[in-house]
Amino acid sequence: MASGDGSKAGDSGEDARVSRTRADVARAALEVLTTDGSDAVTHARVAEIAGYSKTTLYTHWPARIDLIAMAIESLGDMPHHDRTGVLRDDLIGELKVFRAGVLEMRLDRVLSGMAEWASVEQMARIRNKVNTDGQHQMYEMLGEIFSGAPLDAAVSMLTGVVACPAIMFGNVPDDAVIEAAVDVVLNGHQPSSS
Amino acid sequence: MASGDGSKAGDSGEDARVSRTRADVARAALEVLTTDGSDAVTHARVAEIAGYSKTTLYTHWPARIDLIAMAIESLGDMPHHDRTGVLRDDLIGELKVFRAGVLEMRLDRVLSGMAEWASVEQMARIRNKVNTDGQHQMYEMLGEIFSGAPLDAAVSMLTGVVACPAIMFGNVPDDAVIEAAVDVVLNGHQPSSS
Repeated sequence: MASGDGSKAGDSGEDARVSRTRADVARAALEVLTTDGSDAVTHARVAEIAGYSKTTLYTHWPARIDLIAMAIESLGDMPHHDRTGVLRDDLIGELKVFRAGVLEMRLDRVLSGMAEWASVEQMARIRNKVNTDGQHQMYEMLGEIFSGAPLDAAVSMLTGVVACPAIMFGNVPDDAVIEAAVDVVLNGHQPSSS
Repeated sequence: MASGDGSKAGDSGEDARVSRTRADVARAALEVLTTDGSDAVTHARVAEIAGYSKTTLYTHWPARIDLIAMAIESLGDMPHHDRTGVLRDDLIGELKVFRAGVLEMRLDRVLSGMAEWASVEQMARIRNKVNTDGQHQMYEMLGEIFSGAPLDAAVSMLTGVVACPAIMFGNVPDDAVIEAAVDVVLNGHQPSSS
């Protein structure tokens, strides 16, 4: 807030430098993660991309999981569809935004990376945050017609329409599959006739 | 086929030894993969678990992906539910078998590991085989009432009911969620009333 950055130059200069380094390294780690997967996120590779020495990286972030955690935290908020109030359109819109995220931000690699390291406490926390944020709008929308176990089922099902082909086969569903999924879920919320 | 394993002892002895080593190493690699994830599958770790030298492993399988590929190939056929002919029961049964696979065989780690390395040709082939085998019975069952885009959607949706929570949150759905998902899909196959 203070404009006088001459005072306490030592401390604030160091803070600013560390925080700039952190941002650079996080960005580089995210680039490696989304380009080549979490396995490629090594100190050597990230240092090279970020333009810092390996020693600098090891000093601040000694473990590979530190680099991967920074990368995922630097993703920021998950993208969401701007709701129109028409449920079918909004569900389709949300799934298309998720699909774009898989294609453009390589969210499939981020998901796999998070799953990979999930047993580590530090990553479990980040993973839950990112995924809860990712599914929050879907819960809200489907909560208009579902509750309880069917709501959990419907959210997992629609998430799965995009996530499963991406993770299992490395491709994404076309518009027809996304629309069919939404229609099955919307029709399916009626009581069973059997 | 020949019982006379004394003849050509040099060659067949060596073949048998290599194939025993391969089986041991594949088993050890799968153990590391399902216990700690694909990132932990290193020559050093697998050699230690398998009881061979790192040099032996590097000689036969120079790259880490060779070890991961062997591990996944050693999984064998995916487990499936024995069909009864009652579609609802069979879909629920198949999802419960998949859920048991996540819990017991840690198929979620296998999925993440495959996704992680998917860009490598060798892994893409294995991944497609394992996943196609995994979803084959679901396609057959849902093919009784769906076709085209809705069939693809329904298979991804039911796969997602188990796979999404496993990969995203490290947990599996309870029976109520699995049954709700199957009911939504079965109800949803009716033409939309909107």
